[in-house]
Amino acid sequence: MENWLQKQIQLAPHHLALQTANRQLTFAELGADVQGWCDHLTTLVNAGQRIAVLTPNTIAGYEIILALQQLDCTLVLLNRRLAATELVLQLADAQVALCLVAPELHLSQLDPTVQQLTFTQLAQQPCRPASLVAEFTPEKVTTIMYTSGTTGRPKGVLQTFQNHFYSAMGSALNLGLAAQDNWLCAVPLFHISGFSIMMRGLIYGMTVTLVDHFEAPVITHWLRTQPITIMSVVPTMLKALLASTPWQDYHPAFRCFLLGGGPIDCPTLTVCQQRHLPVIQSYGMTETASQVVALNFADAPHKIGSVGKPLFPVQLRLDSATQEVLIKAPNLSPGYWQQPLKTAASRTDGWFKTGDIGWLDADGFLFIKGRQGDMFISGGENIFPAEIEAVYQQQWPQINLVVSHQADAHWGAVPIAFLQGDGLPDHATLQAYGRQHLAHYKVPVHFYQVPHFPRTASGKIQRHRLAEPQFQQQPL
Amino acid sequence: MENWLQKQIQLAPHHLALQTANRQLTFAELGADVQGWCDHLTTLVNAGQRIAVLTPNTIAGYEIILALQQLDCTLVLLNRRLAATELVLQLADAQVALCLVAPELHLSQLDPTVQQLTFTQLAQQPCRPASLVAEFTPEKVTTIMYTSGTTGRPKGVLQTFQNHFYSAMGSALNLGLAAQDNWLCAVPLFHISGFSIMMRGLIYGMTVTLVDHFEAPVITHWLRTQPITIMSVVPTMLKALLASTPWQDYHPAFRCFLLGGGPIDCPTLTVCQQRHLPVIQSYGMTETASQVVALNFADAPHKIGSVGKPLFPVQLRLDSATQEVLIKAPNLSPGYWQQPLKTAASRTDGWFKTGDIGWLDADGFLFIKGRQGDMFISGGENIFPAEIEAVYQQQWPQINLVVSHQADAHWGAVPIAFLQGDGLPDHATLQAYGRQHLAHYKVPVHFYQVPHFPRTASGKIQRHRLAEPQFQQQPL
Repeated sequence: MENWLQKQIQLAPHHLALQTANRQLTFAELGADVQGWCDHLTTLVNAGQRIAVLTPNTIAGYEIILALQQLDCTLVLLNRRLAATELVLQLADAQVALCLVAPELHLSQLDPTVQQLTFTQLAQQPCRPASLVAEFTPEKVTTIMYTSGTTGRPKGVLQTFQNHFYSAMGSALNLGLAAQDNWLCAVPLFHISGFSIMMRGLIYGMTVTLVDHFEAPVITHWLRTQPITIMSVVPTMLKALLASTPWQDYHPAFRCFLLGGGPIDCPTLTVCQQRHLPVIQSYGMTETASQVVALNFADAPHKIGSVGKPLFPVQLRLDSATQEVLIKAPNLSPGYWQQPLKTAASRTDGWFKTGDIGWLDADGFLFIKGRQGDMFISGGENIFPAEIEAVYQQQWPQINLVVSHQADAHWGAVPIAFLQGDGLPDHATLQAYGRQHLAHYKVPVHFYQVPHFPRTASGKIQRHRLAEPQFQQQPL
Repeated sequence: MENWLQKQIQLAPHHLALQTANRQLTFAELGADVQGWCDHLTTLVNAGQRIAVLTPNTIAGYEIILALQQLDCTLVLLNRRLAATELVLQLADAQVALCLVAPELHLSQLDPTVQQLTFTQLAQQPCRPASLVAEFTPEKVTTIMYTSGTTGRPKGVLQTFQNHFYSAMGSALNLGLAAQDNWLCAVPLFHISGFSIMMRGLIYGMTVTLVDHFEAPVITHWLRTQPITIMSVVPTMLKALLASTPWQDYHPAFRCFLLGGGPIDCPTLTVCQQRHLPVIQSYGMTETASQVVALNFADAPHKIGSVGKPLFPVQLRLDSATQEVLIKAPNLSPGYWQQPLKTAASRTDGWFKTGDIGWLDADGFLFIKGRQGDMFISGGENIFPAEIEAVYQQQWPQINLVVSHQADAHWGAVPIAFLQGDGLPDHATLQAYGRQHLAHYKVPVHFYQVPHFPRTASGKIQRHRLAEPQFQQQPL
């Protein structure tokens, strides 16, 4: 396929491609800027090299990412929320030839063999007219994203042009496509949630509105005054937005929130429904280059709690023994960078093992019970923390409650719960409610108050870290 | 990719899939009907066989086409407007195992080695539960369409699933996609213009409204009373519709006419523009599984006469010597059935030679001058009939005028014109107008009145046949 950016410069030169609070760029202007970065880069990098980028959601970062793609380099997108030591591990693993960083994110502990340039330094490099790649080869790896892995060697997820193309197509076939679409990106560009918006921008010829820090009042202002049509959110963002201005005040162009990044409680979704605020629940991961399962507009109000049906190019089935969600799709990553064993271990018969346990209702809608790794066994019974959490949140929607487990001499393991918020109920109330609404073995034996939850860089709660003693200092 | 029909049955079982004046079917109902036809077919056909279908635009024909695709057969779509002798040639060329025909189209001159069944006879065949193909393999040939070739052995254009998929995606990326889309198909299913609507129906999960005979009052009634959003038209259809009800009366859901099947005169497009009637000019062919170039909504009013820009997955360039339009695209046919020489002759360096001569304006919009084969040389000058026609139609929009050429001892060849309509101007008027608006060598030397133009089955005027004496009996 023709180079996507060059194609949009040709098709829609005067269409707004990218905007922030301070600046607006058409596709022609974005293309000119990107060419400028390419001219600085062309003597520093070669096609096929892996080049790392560490950037917040800024125009410069956006353009440099595009420039490296134009020069046929493989992007290694670094997570700015990780510690420097974690980044150093990833840079070594990916064997990057160069690391480009936003000035404020300069890495001090870098191995001296890895060349590091800030964007400012890059802009001072000599210029030579760069020749850009003519075609985007579908099977070629264009991005590597390290998953927020737990322990051991980090896993670099390979993503091809084809992966991003089919992901964008699956999303369009579900959400529809309109000439005036304008996608607000307040999720990080280094994460598939943000990067997939960039790629949709290139493929659809769509405006991307780029925001660096999520602050509910700022976003609300955007949604009220600008013709934003779609915004990608994670549950915490949606809750913060719900707490601010009501839906009626949003710009009439607004179509929906695309909700990803983990499960949300039913009460929050019910509030959205009451406010006629379209929220499209979705399910996806770095390995599938974004969404693979999503609700549609028609079903969303009737299937609260479900993440939807597999999108058009996606096949899905459940492992008959474990109920693990298995995926086959053209947007599925070819594997992990230089880790054939981990790649092989993530597949069964050509199907990708997501690690999530789910069930399908009679109409074919997928519900996620939880992570296979989160499940624990108590007295021979499988327990999914997410199920217990959902029951408590039905009663106390304003409280964040997370379930983990601890070892138990008699049952093997027993559930324990962690709560965060104001005006928490006492232990007796929580236990009585649990006994009324849950099987006895699912009722947490301890309830702890915590000031905050440990989270990954992408905002997901790290349930397993709640086993650390620091979180168990304030029993309710 | 998963079987497209089964995917929509799963994703949108209750969504309207197909409607005619008499009947409406959801995807679940269409799926059940198709399964019924498969059960009748399963003992008659094998996967991989070529099976011919000869049908008008009826629900039975639509379902039988889908059923054969479900059974992994390659469809040979026969053109009902061809003479029986032409069809017999195509059936022999394609080596079909079975020919399924609508009862009223029963072929009498068929080679006894080809089994023929009418749809009625098929419905009486014994049933066995058929197993349907699980996946649509992108590279697999699913359809063969014979081009309305001139002389010699007919050319069967191979079309893969991937061809149809990318064609549908290119169209969606240009026209947008909405959940309520409903495409009126009054163009034949055996032609890529109609078949591509069927495939979009399966890929988008979209309603197709099927009409067999184009009659302007009937279509106008559909467009006024039903939420049709898009209709594919050829120039003659558009002119007939313009002559009836004005745009204001159409259902508010109506989005646009997609215009293909040859050039249209500028005056007609100007009328559409004045009536605020969105017409999207497009350009495509059987070999590219429908549109490869089209205008978009924003550019359409400013670029009258252009067929647009190459769609997202399409690359286009002009041959530097001949200005022939060359195409590279994932929707490009792998070639002609069992004709490697003709396939090779249609390519140059991986680019498909369309046979059309065009030019690109400064903004990259394509204009088609005419067919390479239509061009003739007069006194060393290249002449394209379409250019002369456009000049005359500017002055007399209600008259159909077609230019051809005849041999000339002095100039090699000279242009001649054929007119059809009421109240034709006389020879002196036509020639005087030509001398005023055209280079001298482009002014037709003879003008003939004809009762009708010779046309191909798909409605295209057969310019070369105008050289036959029967068309030159009434000089003006």
